Amino acid sequence: MQLIDQLRAMLGADAVLTEASDLAGHTEDWRGRYRGEALCVVQPSSTEQVAGVVRAAVAAGVPVLPQGGNTSLCGGAVPEAAGPPPVIVSMARMRRIRSLDAANNSMEVEAGCVLATIQQAAMDAGRLYAVSLGAEGSCQIGGNIATNAGGTGVLRYGNTRDNILGLEVVLPDGDIWNGLYRLRKNNTGLDLKHLFIGAEGTLGIVTAATLKLHPLPTAHAVAWMAPPSPAAALEMLGLLQAACGAQLSAYEMIDAGQLQIVLDHVPGRRAPLPPTHKWHVLVELSDTRGEQELTDAMQAVLQQGAERGLVDDAVLASSGAQRAAMWEVRHSVSEGNKKAGVGLTTDTAVPVSAVPEFIERATAAVHAIVPGLPIILVAHLGDGNVHFIPFYSHAEWEALPDREAMGLRIKHAVNEVGHALGGTFSAEHGIGQTLTSEMAQFKPPVELALMHGIKQLLDPGNLFNPHRLLPPATPPAR
Amino acid sequence: MQLIDQLRAMLGADAVLTEASDLAGHTEDWRGRYRGEALCVVQPSSTEQVAGVVRAAVAAGVPVLPQGGNTSLCGGAVPEAAGPPPVIVSMARMRRIRSLDAANNSMEVEAGCVLATIQQAAMDAGRLYAVSLGAEGSCQIGGNIATNAGGTGVLRYGNTRDNILGLEVVLPDGDIWNGLYRLRKNNTGLDLKHLFIGAEGTLGIVTAATLKLHPLPTAHAVAWMAPPSPAAALEMLGLLQAACGAQLSAYEMIDAGQLQIVLDHVPGRRAPLPPTHKWHVLVELSDTRGEQELTDAMQAVLQQGAERGLVDDAVLASSGAQRAAMWEVRHSVSEGNKKAGVGLTTDTAVPVSAVPEFIERATAAVHAIVPGLPIILVAHLGDGNVHFIPFYSHAEWEALPDREAMGLRIKHAVNEVGHALGGTFSAEHGIGQTLTSEMAQFKPPVELALMHGIKQLLDPGNLFNPHRLLPPATPPAR
Repeated sequence: MQLIDQLRAMLGADAVLTEASDLAGHTEDWRGRYRGEALCVVQPSSTEQVAGVVRAAVAAGVPVLPQGGNTSLCGGAVPEAAGPPPVIVSMARMRRIRSLDAANNSMEVEAGCVLATIQQAAMDAGRLYAVSLGAEGSCQIGGNIATNAGGTGVLRYGNTRDNILGLEVVLPDGDIWNGLYRLRKNNTGLDLKHLFIGAEGTLGIVTAATLKLHPLPTAHAVAWMAPPSPAAALEMLGLLQAACGAQLSAYEMIDAGQLQIVLDHVPGRRAPLPPTHKWHVLVELSDTRGEQELTDAMQAVLQQGAERGLVDDAVLASSGAQRAAMWEVRHSVSEGNKKAGVGLTTDTAVPVSAVPEFIERATAAVHAIVPGLPIILVAHLGDGNVHFIPFYSHAEWEALPDREAMGLRIKHAVNEVGHALGGTFSAEHGIGQTLTSEMAQFKPPVELALMHGIKQLLDPGNLFNPHRLLPPATPPAR
Repeated sequence: MQLIDQLRAMLGADAVLTEASDLAGHTEDWRGRYRGEALCVVQPSSTEQVAGVVRAAVAAGVPVLPQGGNTSLCGGAVPEAAGPPPVIVSMARMRRIRSLDAANNSMEVEAGCVLATIQQAAMDAGRLYAVSLGAEGSCQIGGNIATNAGGTGVLRYGNTRDNILGLEVVLPDGDIWNGLYRLRKNNTGLDLKHLFIGAEGTLGIVTAATLKLHPLPTAHAVAWMAPPSPAAALEMLGLLQAACGAQLSAYEMIDAGQLQIVLDHVPGRRAPLPPTHKWHVLVELSDTRGEQELTDAMQAVLQQGAERGLVDDAVLASSGAQRAAMWEVRHSVSEGNKKAGVGLTTDTAVPVSAVPEFIERATAAVHAIVPGLPIILVAHLGDGNVHFIPFYSHAEWEALPDREAMGLRIKHAVNEVGHALGGTFSAEHGIGQTLTSEMAQFKPPVELALMHGIKQLLDPGNLFNPHRLLPPATPPAR
């Protein structure tokens, strides 16, 4: 095929993969839920090479699929099963840290840098890159940017969007936009980086970014507590924010069912408090000074909470090892759930104040469909982000007559509750191919029309990760 | 005129102003530098009324100029002198605080709310709305959003953009986009609010917003120090960030010339340290707990700085009154400068690490044009934002043969230095009409083309605040 020859001439033969065995890791997602065909996988080494690939593919009318670590939970990074096979642009060879400016608290990195590598480089310079999430050992910063990745640091440091100062992007017409600003203030027209953050590769290919760094916290206090209810957990959050707002860096809630699954299925995990308590919260304070002060502050708030009946029990980590052990319980959630059965995970966010009501109403909505179905949950409570998980054992799931329809029905019922409370059906995972139908149902038409207009403006041929992120355009009613 | 009759029928006669005396405060900026004609000023009371005004004006082919508190420094909020007279849409009647959700740390406000009113409402609920700037007693939140206003809280809390959760916007076609999300996480397609933040009213009219609130700091420590050089001030910033990164809420530098002007021209101001020191920095730490701890931390860093030769002298405020007095010196800069003469203020930002070099090179560039011209400066040093001010006495300025050309030449020379160091010619004031020519010179053509494309997409008739923000479109070279 002519395009492949062209790409080989441009990048070198070793950077254009066409063998089935080479494509396998790129055409299927890591959970094995989505797969499609690709024309080839290219591995450019420079921004100019990416631009060349884009120009060649667009001239040939072939779709372009940018790919990072392929860790999407929504099938956003693999080819369409039904569409024409795209050129997959793997960013794995563009993994240089171009520079780090400690005094400016910024670093410039190529899109293929693995998140953990970036975190480590920042730490080596006495700085923090604040985005942290389960896939950090393999996900790439380009994918983080394309999906505006969230994680456990959002409460204090925001999403990926909030940690980006500038971008370099290859646009669908092959032009390179050098927007690698490294400024804290820049009011010169539209802030275009926000167009590409969260666009899931539908508007071009992010090739590099300037990241915002923070002072590296050196003091930590971690507690595990059992509030009697989500409402009590919310009140405790308020007390902690009032007392230690600037130090509060994590506020993660799981319920007893979720804790039990981790204990049953992940070797070596121990419960900081017994799962006889229905609700569990991990709290972390961190700062650049005063570990004893943090511990004192945490103890004072826990004491206050106990007096008000907001905490039934609590334990404060007294060593780095204990802190790590508490976090390991939290981080073992995905592994435990995968082993224990099939979770119909949603990625809801509601206003933080609405979380207790959301849990109550979503539980009722699910039980109206399947009475008594077990539900577990894990929540970034400080962000109002609840992964609400109706949960089947493997056997029960296999026995269902129409699994796919049931999964969609249950998740949609939960999303309806979130929506009614001013919430969203995708807080941090993005849309990919899984949620385009929810987009069509929940997004205001005015908003969808604006998004379609921008897509059409930048990618008139609809060649960049087509049919992802947006539902098909409907003609305007007027 | 038919449009005016239509608007009167829609809004009521008292909400459509046409008398010259009523228009005066709307057609000229507060410094008296820019003025133009207006067809009328309308004062809608609801989002639906704004949409009605927009539809009527667009149908009549009349430009639309949204206006907040009219405090722009760049002539962004008054009509073009040369253009057809617009309908000015004053937001002053839309000033309701619609709701405040303390547990969610958010509030929903209409665009005409004055910034100080919002700050007070947040404080009454034990929360902080973190944007703070000189005009806060009269500027409106809608204008803050349209210009992505900065100010003195950016170092810790970011610009206006970083403090917005959602927007309600009347689009140029009269559609209302209800994007009043109040979520910390929402990854459902393009984050459209960022299109309108900083767009200076060229893409529609912001009618309401959901604001992000923070825990209210109750403990403060403020110091005034004299570092021997900007480089030393920068090193002190690094020490402070390493030691108290989460508490550092202001780092403002002025030079001796600027301090002297304040002392000479603003009654009641006293120098915390004598202006025999060439450089002065105001540092603020704030937190939700532990005033003594903050004071101790500040003292420890000052001590460290003194030992390393980074601070020649320093004084720590020992009471709320002393803190306020130090801040008053900083806040008296504009008043002092207005009385003392004519300052050719720029609004440069460079990477924080490049500030010392910027000051040196910009000084040389100005002196290459006018040898020995006095230069004063006031900098949000923590943000890399330097208001670099070549300064004429009133008499010297009046004696210049071509004042306007000289002003432009000197400012452009400073902007060139900033640009060469990776900086920007508008950090926090925006573009308005003053800086469109700098946009044309400094912005990459790819970036300008994207902005023009989006403007054309949303406002095909070029009726919304025309000829502001963007220079005229040039046809693509290809």
